[in-house]
Amino acid sequence: MSKSRLDKYEGRYAARVGDMRSSAIRDLMSLTARPEVISLAGGMPATECFPGEVFDRINLHIGANKRALSLQYGPTEGFDFVKDDIAVLLAEEDTAIDPARVLITTGAQQGIDLVTKTFVDPGDIVLAEGPTYAGALATFSTYQADVRHLPMDGDGLVVEELENVLAELEIEGRRPKFLYVVPNFSNPGGTTLSLERRKRLVELAGEKELLVIEDNPYGLLRFAGEPVSTLLSLDRAENVVYLGSFSKIISPGIRTGYLIAPPAIYQKMVFGKQATDLCSSPLNQLFVHEFISSGAWVEYVQRQRSLYLSRRDAMLAALRKEFPPGSTWTVPQGGFFVWATLPEPVHTGDLLVKAIEENVAFVGGAGFFTDGRGTSSMRLSFSGQSEERIREGICRLGGVIREQMGLYEALGFSGRQGESVDRDGGS
Amino acid sequence: MSKSRLDKYEGRYAARVGDMRSSAIRDLMSLTARPEVISLAGGMPATECFPGEVFDRINLHIGANKRALSLQYGPTEGFDFVKDDIAVLLAEEDTAIDPARVLITTGAQQGIDLVTKTFVDPGDIVLAEGPTYAGALATFSTYQADVRHLPMDGDGLVVEELENVLAELEIEGRRPKFLYVVPNFSNPGGTTLSLERRKRLVELAGEKELLVIEDNPYGLLRFAGEPVSTLLSLDRAENVVYLGSFSKIISPGIRTGYLIAPPAIYQKMVFGKQATDLCSSPLNQLFVHEFISSGAWVEYVQRQRSLYLSRRDAMLAALRKEFPPGSTWTVPQGGFFVWATLPEPVHTGDLLVKAIEENVAFVGGAGFFTDGRGTSSMRLSFSGQSEERIREGICRLGGVIREQMGLYEALGFSGRQGESVDRDGGS
Repeated sequence: MSKSRLDKYEGRYAARVGDMRSSAIRDLMSLTARPEVISLAGGMPATECFPGEVFDRINLHIGANKRALSLQYGPTEGFDFVKDDIAVLLAEEDTAIDPARVLITTGAQQGIDLVTKTFVDPGDIVLAEGPTYAGALATFSTYQADVRHLPMDGDGLVVEELENVLAELEIEGRRPKFLYVVPNFSNPGGTTLSLERRKRLVELAGEKELLVIEDNPYGLLRFAGEPVSTLLSLDRAENVVYLGSFSKIISPGIRTGYLIAPPAIYQKMVFGKQATDLCSSPLNQLFVHEFISSGAWVEYVQRQRSLYLSRRDAMLAALRKEFPPGSTWTVPQGGFFVWATLPEPVHTGDLLVKAIEENVAFVGGAGFFTDGRGTSSMRLSFSGQSEERIREGICRLGGVIREQMGLYEALGFSGRQGESVDRDGGS
Repeated sequence: MSKSRLDKYEGRYAARVGDMRSSAIRDLMSLTARPEVISLAGGMPATECFPGEVFDRINLHIGANKRALSLQYGPTEGFDFVKDDIAVLLAEEDTAIDPARVLITTGAQQGIDLVTKTFVDPGDIVLAEGPTYAGALATFSTYQADVRHLPMDGDGLVVEELENVLAELEIEGRRPKFLYVVPNFSNPGGTTLSLERRKRLVELAGEKELLVIEDNPYGLLRFAGEPVSTLLSLDRAENVVYLGSFSKIISPGIRTGYLIAPPAIYQKMVFGKQATDLCSSPLNQLFVHEFISSGAWVEYVQRQRSLYLSRRDAMLAALRKEFPPGSTWTVPQGGFFVWATLPEPVHTGDLLVKAIEENVAFVGGAGFFTDGRGTSSMRLSFSGQSEERIREGICRLGGVIREQMGLYEALGFSGRQGESVDRDGGS
């Protein structure tokens, strides 16, 4: 089939799709599907732990009592009883909500898409942590947003720096459409925004009328430290749109998440959802409802927490053993991810190619920035592999890093490059 | 909570969402949720007929053999084995496809969204049948498309008229981004595009490099007449993007559809889907796979066909009995819908208000056009109600129509309006 044929519509793509970037993580997934690869790349929950008897009991209950409902179209907003379940879950995070402000989405990813669709015209500024969730960057690029990263430290987003950025933008006569933030065990950073900064962030949002998108998929997966209030619970001025997900506490395979928005914004999101996929799967919503309302989720989430804690500890111990001096990494109190940074001049993009040859995978840090940063860093996910495989994976990775560092040394960085190239060529 | 607070973000909505129109059908669904309402509005499949033993067998099989897979993230494109199932189904419509060109979507609605996202910038022209699917119009409005309707008759879209429209646009120096068409038992028209016109349409698309979106959710639900080749099977020049759905032959509650696109376009759609909801539910895809690959679908679809035929006949008989002289309606050979047109000056928008008071609902014809037409027409769905309720619903509707026509008469159209208002006021 001729190339001219295939490409005849090329020039007619909407500009936004022409510029789209694919998420670094999703691209890796096909590479790492081989069973011999130890993938520390994707943020995969341990779905193999989902109890079979609970799975069957839920489905048999739906089959016996709600089969026609589960197989029919549902309301665009989602079922009221699922909204009530969400209110129960958020109460666990000390956050009181009005269920009428909940919109069930096809995963929290759709929440990011709907917010961006609603607010972003090409060229509009979106603020985000640096590094930030690569899947959100993919969505922002679909709508041609101009993403500006804000610095982070061990306490998450540096809110003082946000003040400066907002002031600078004001001088330019520009205002950002929103700030996107993952306050708990951030993806990919693994850091948590401190309470003090949260309070200041919400206050600042009120002063500046800054819309804040709080993406909190991991909040209930805290396995160390003390819970910190959600931005939504601190917000008194309706500046926060909250995104939640069942992907991490039940299953990503049911593609069910939610957003909570102030009424005026909410209705726009409902229109957007209606035009995108009509409604989220009623069958999957009923699965969520049976799992949450039966209370089965409590034990499951507790087990997941202790599982992820063990896996995190296995990863941290392996990093201490295998990674070279000068490496640093975050110590997350929940969630799925460690963010590791290697001594210069290691480039994690180059490293990944070698690592996959050695049957271990991670996500290179550059995928979490839009501005070329992150090339010395990597995201390591501990959620989806056994402790043994985590140890083995980090061991292989350590070998690849040492090999690459040895090569750099042999190539003689610090001005000895010419000489070392000769030496390498002559060996 | 103050209005100024709620509205502070109003001016910052993306233009496309500001202009969005809600689908007439989805808005009706909440109105018609009361059990006493006989809804001939939404195109609801008869999900109450889905056999309980099949539902349980599928779910128990997944639970025992593929639980972790069903609950995990899946590939953005969908599972290969589901793509193979789709190839089997399309063979039933004499359409040979390459499974590598199939993208699983979250309902066919998402297919419409992805195509529009890929091709339409604000102000771009989209061609569609008139009347056309209201849910597609909602999507087109999200991207600020300029929709131009093409005329239809008993053989579907008048392709000769398409030639004229394309020629006119060429003179203006404009070209449409695509033509959206529902060739089989169209929604809402109930008409089927003749084979002769299909051949000419595909030929014309080749001559003019016109992209054609073939939306075929009802193709396998033919209960009368002879099958007609799909546009996809007639197309030799890669101008057709095909949208399919499991909503009508299995269940809309599983939100699983698909699109088939030429390779160059396909990859753009995958990016778009990735940024929208990562992947379609693996749990639901496995449900589809078990249902199709076990062969259970054959008997189910046969039963649905004969059920819908009986319901259509019940509706046609009731229309003949209850609707006033001068009314016309289509006689579909498959699908879910009859399109009825009443004598002027009946306005189906006004009629709907009265009808809902009498606990019967339909969709007013204006919702299927963007240009104000359709006010004498209505879409009547026979798929979701028993024959008895269809008869009762059309009977109530006939009463409301007669009442409204009597009122028009009393108001004395043809210049007697003043007199009749006096008479009405004095009674």
